[in-house]
Amino acid sequence: MFKKVCIIGCGLIGSSIARAIKKNNLSKQIVSSNRSEHTNKKVVKLNIVNDSSSDTKKMVRESDLVIIATPLSSYKNVISEIKNCLKTGTILTDVGSVKKKAISLIEKNIPKNISWISSHPIAGTEESGPEAGFADLFKKRWCILTPSNQAKNKDIKLLEKFWIKLGSQVDVMNVKQHDYVLSITSHMPHLIAYNIVNTTLNVKKKKNQDIIKYSAGGLRDFTRIAASNPIMWRDIFIQNRKNTSKMIDKFIKNLKDLKKAIKNKNEKKLEKIFTKTKKIRKEIVAAGQDIGKPDFGRK
Amino acid sequence: MFKKVCIIGCGLIGSSIARAIKKNNLSKQIVSSNRSEHTNKKVVKLNIVNDSSSDTKKMVRESDLVIIATPLSSYKNVISEIKNCLKTGTILTDVGSVKKKAISLIEKNIPKNISWISSHPIAGTEESGPEAGFADLFKKRWCILTPSNQAKNKDIKLLEKFWIKLGSQVDVMNVKQHDYVLSITSHMPHLIAYNIVNTTLNVKKKKNQDIIKYSAGGLRDFTRIAASNPIMWRDIFIQNRKNTSKMIDKFIKNLKDLKKAIKNKNEKKLEKIFTKTKKIRKEIVAAGQDIGKPDFGRK
Repeated sequence: MFKKVCIIGCGLIGSSIARAIKKNNLSKQIVSSNRSEHTNKKVVKLNIVNDSSSDTKKMVRESDLVIIATPLSSYKNVISEIKNCLKTGTILTDVGSVKKKAISLIEKNIPKNISWISSHPIAGTEESGPEAGFADLFKKRWCILTPSNQAKNKDIKLLEKFWIKLGSQVDVMNVKQHDYVLSITSHMPHLIAYNIVNTTLNVKKKKNQDIIKYSAGGLRDFTRIAASNPIMWRDIFIQNRKNTSKMIDKFIKNLKDLKKAIKNKNEKKLEKIFTKTKKIRKEIVAAGQDIGKPDFGRK
Repeated sequence: MFKKVCIIGCGLIGSSIARAIKKNNLSKQIVSSNRSEHTNKKVVKLNIVNDSSSDTKKMVRESDLVIIATPLSSYKNVISEIKNCLKTGTILTDVGSVKKKAISLIEKNIPKNISWISSHPIAGTEESGPEAGFADLFKKRWCILTPSNQAKNKDIKLLEKFWIKLGSQVDVMNVKQHDYVLSITSHMPHLIAYNIVNTTLNVKKKKNQDIIKYSAGGLRDFTRIAASNPIMWRDIFIQNRKNTSKMIDKFIKNLKDLKKAIKNKNEKKLEKIFTKTKKIRKEIVAAGQDIGKPDFGRK
């Protein structure tokens, strides 16, 4: 499919893409670039990529596909590094979770002969780093493409085919729709998980062991998400701050309503809300976006 | 261990206890009482209990151990049914998630010759009903005992042994401590999960399919908890409303702080909080209260 693919940032997502490319024979050569020499050595030693170096300019040269898989806050530096080293016709993509700023930044800085098509694979785990990656991470998950104004149609199709080969289903969305929908399905749930765990930590000092011991009552589910990569999520919330803020306001309004219903012992209202929320899980399981086993099939 | 055990309310928890009693040979006879004749027939047919009837008075007679496993709001009726039918020396327990009201209600209404010792197994799944139960539900989970003023020491020890035979570890706590700690580890996480799913449903109409499709970005974890039994949770929040309200206020205060940090692009603060929250998961996994596999070992 490609002669050379370069992945900038070989963390959980980057290394999973590299592994999936190898597994599915999608490129003759796979290289990566990481700031840390330790990581560059590791990804070669683990046979995830053929070559890796902190010299990003060198690594991207002659690549047909370049994938930025670093935190959003580093895009500016990455782009200024690579913009003059990409060959004509290269497809440039990323895997970032917020699109608005990234797309306009890259549109402004990348030569017109580069096809810039943003990707967002809706996949991941709470772990970070190249060892955490695996080839099947994208299987049955959705990947959203958000083409920039300088994306060629044939390249959009090729990139779509690439994600399908990795096991994903592909959707195309515009920037505004992407950042709004993802603020609901991903950014807000992460923020809420971080906030409940943080609120718990603040009262934890007094009751430290009790909190850990009895976490199976519900809290433990939130700690999984609140163990995700801190830098990545810091950047996501800041870049999608308008949508996130609006969702926070709605969330607080609803939580205050619930508090009032609890205070007033409004049984009917509580029962009605909790019955409504029960239904969405079935739809998610039916859509193949979670497993149907109780308790996520733990044990 | 016992000659006759009676379980009032054979749902997820009640039926799991019945199954575990059978599996571990802890009683010669196990009976249950359910309001619905359909359920009474089902639990006998499924061989979960030896006998079952809506006639609670009849079922509890001659039992050495009576376990109330109905929603908290039904305790009043259950107690007035059974209070004059229990034999001298019977151990009476429940499996409720809030202790204050339940313990004083039963202390006031049950004859002095009954040993009333409240239990709270910290175990469950998002499913409800007798088919959802299984014998190993309590394995490696904690069970908290909260003895009333009319609990005999030898009975506390016997009930402790009973839960240990079911696979649990047992702690003894007073009412106040129990209701406070559980509001943090269980009640608040459930309320927040219900609230985020409810907030999502309110914006969902416009983007229905998108919300389901992209739920793997984080939302799906919350939908599991928000699929729990509505009646049970309605009662829990109302009975533990003081602790729950205080936790809601703390949660909202922290969420507003996060919103401000995001608005001000306060990278340092966000990174600090998200790094702190990462640690608690390791402690929970180390304590055996969750599995260590990424993504709960899904797939």
